[in-house]
Amino acid sequence: MGKVFLLAPDSFKESMTAKEVCEAMETGIKRAIPDAECIHVPMADGGEGTVQSLIDATGGAMIEKEVTGPLGTPVLARYGILGDGKTGVIEMASASGIHHVTKETKNPLITTTLGTGELIRDCIERGITDIILGIGGSATNDGGAGMARALGYQFLDKHGNELPLGGGFLGELERIDARNVMPQLQDVKILVASDVTNPLCGEHGASAVFGPQKGATPEMIKVLDSNLRQYSSVVKEQLGIDMVDVPGAGAAGGLGGGLLAFTNATMKKGIEIIIEYTQLKEKLKNADYCITGEGGIDFQTKFGKAPYGVAQAAKSVNREMKVIALAGYIGKDVETLYDEGFDAIFGIVPGAADIETLLAQGKENVARTSESITRLLS
Amino acid sequence: MGKVFLLAPDSFKESMTAKEVCEAMETGIKRAIPDAECIHVPMADGGEGTVQSLIDATGGAMIEKEVTGPLGTPVLARYGILGDGKTGVIEMASASGIHHVTKETKNPLITTTLGTGELIRDCIERGITDIILGIGGSATNDGGAGMARALGYQFLDKHGNELPLGGGFLGELERIDARNVMPQLQDVKILVASDVTNPLCGEHGASAVFGPQKGATPEMIKVLDSNLRQYSSVVKEQLGIDMVDVPGAGAAGGLGGGLLAFTNATMKKGIEIIIEYTQLKEKLKNADYCITGEGGIDFQTKFGKAPYGVAQAAKSVNREMKVIALAGYIGKDVETLYDEGFDAIFGIVPGAADIETLLAQGKENVARTSESITRLLS
Repeated sequence: MGKVFLLAPDSFKESMTAKEVCEAMETGIKRAIPDAECIHVPMADGGEGTVQSLIDATGGAMIEKEVTGPLGTPVLARYGILGDGKTGVIEMASASGIHHVTKETKNPLITTTLGTGELIRDCIERGITDIILGIGGSATNDGGAGMARALGYQFLDKHGNELPLGGGFLGELERIDARNVMPQLQDVKILVASDVTNPLCGEHGASAVFGPQKGATPEMIKVLDSNLRQYSSVVKEQLGIDMVDVPGAGAAGGLGGGLLAFTNATMKKGIEIIIEYTQLKEKLKNADYCITGEGGIDFQTKFGKAPYGVAQAAKSVNREMKVIALAGYIGKDVETLYDEGFDAIFGIVPGAADIETLLAQGKENVARTSESITRLLS
Repeated sequence: MGKVFLLAPDSFKESMTAKEVCEAMETGIKRAIPDAECIHVPMADGGEGTVQSLIDATGGAMIEKEVTGPLGTPVLARYGILGDGKTGVIEMASASGIHHVTKETKNPLITTTLGTGELIRDCIERGITDIILGIGGSATNDGGAGMARALGYQFLDKHGNELPLGGGFLGELERIDARNVMPQLQDVKILVASDVTNPLCGEHGASAVFGPQKGATPEMIKVLDSNLRQYSSVVKEQLGIDMVDVPGAGAAGGLGGGLLAFTNATMKKGIEIIIEYTQLKEKLKNADYCITGEGGIDFQTKFGKAPYGVAQAAKSVNREMKVIALAGYIGKDVETLYDEGFDAIFGIVPGAADIETLLAQGKENVARTSESITRLLS
């Protein structure tokens, strides 16, 4: 009688998408048990790979669109429409991510989330009413002002002139004009996938904590933080929304705050959103075993990574279900995960090798390891 | 209720002895099941590590002795006395191995097995009546004449002068004088651990097949082969023993043949000897699971390597017993081993790393992998 394996890995970055990992797992499982049933639920954690995995898990489609990059020049970005046809899924990094700037060009005074707003706008113009927005990996520190501008908000100085793009100019903000905001926006729900709980300003705020990795010098941090404070005080005054101390407002250079201020947004942990939209728990009910995995697994996996969410979900459905994780890299204190719903964690690496070789042979290594696991279970 | 794990790995060369692998496995198993019972049966295959593993498996002792190395200069060699107190175990390589010569000094015309004979002699003088002799890794091509000389045989030329040591001089052999052979030798049984089936002479013989790796040029091979033929014809004429075509006579530069001619020797595959002397099968009868392993595992493992012998033994005792192998390196076509008694084969490597790093962290990697396996089984 065929056993049912639920396969819910995250991607193995630079080696395989989550869907490809599922396929490699199934290859190995079927070498051991040809009539095994495999349920594929490619996962993500709200970060890179979220769009691809949600498309793969729901049978959705990928849209390409040229938008404004973080430096104001055009970039080709992508977002997804899920299989339900009414939910869009966007990674802000696709339009406004740090990978669009170089060591030389990164400058959080001028980088903008305008492109992310353009993707949201494009979704809305297609009739999308629900948007999942992953906000990791930003190059920006503009409090989401660029994003809001793409939706019709205008940010004006004391002379009534529109401010230039970028967090470096928000100190001049005097007035926000909402007259040209696209009317459909009020009917759109945005579910923001973010594990970050930092406030907008201050020593734990966006500028101080995440500014340096975006190129901010100590002087720039002072300017950026002060500007976000001015920005939030205008928002509070005119829109009646106090975002300065909201946990998560500081995510993605304050884009978290901007979404809360200018859109109908809710924040949730990335992995929780993915589990909900992939209907992971319903699918787990039919499974005998659960296999997850990620490129790297270590003690930090329990702080919201996809395999952690999967393990927790599996045990919540069936305490006795074996949860096995595969990883290309097994790091520090991985044994602490045994208290977090993981039964076994196996490396897939066959021997001494450099990272390029291992990335290239990921599929066979996943298949081989999955076969041995399956033989052990059967 | 505690499960019983039989742990029967070979050594992980340059990283852990077989006994150390057993200990690391137990560490991991007990992290998962604190009251698990672990039976340690450190293995070997007749090659390097055989003495250590048989000592460890039987509670024996290691003896150090200075003997004549392959080049005629002294070397410090070691051999074992098993826990029964009456069985010696010798690796010929310890006295006469290729590691005692360098690229510059290797010369199969002059290298000798005298030191191996000196170890045998030392055993006999201690009252040992049974000797297990592993004959892999030799630097020699002397047909075991040096070994025999240490036991009292004299190899004389036509003038009645004793020949110099080394396979390069056996062409001058005219007569073998056995008058001074130690009298106890006739009561000593030597079990020769060898997987080699080559004859003494000819195109598949010791000189042609194994000569080159010992430094023989094509011209030297002709001389060495011709000399072994002369040697075997004198042996046949005077002792009535025809060793030239006996399978295995060509092992270790003809030491196989010399042992058959001059001692009370039987040849057997290394792994079979180890399984017998460690009483592996008896111990397997009490086990629920069998875990084996070796530094490297690939399709060649089934040609007489220790994990193969262990897997076969486990399945012969209990077809349902799960046999799991660990390896630091998983090589080509490892899946062919699933038809040979292996249920699962896991790599212990945690990620991209160079070989030195992996050799140094072998114990923790074995423990970690053993823990996950145990959690999966329990």
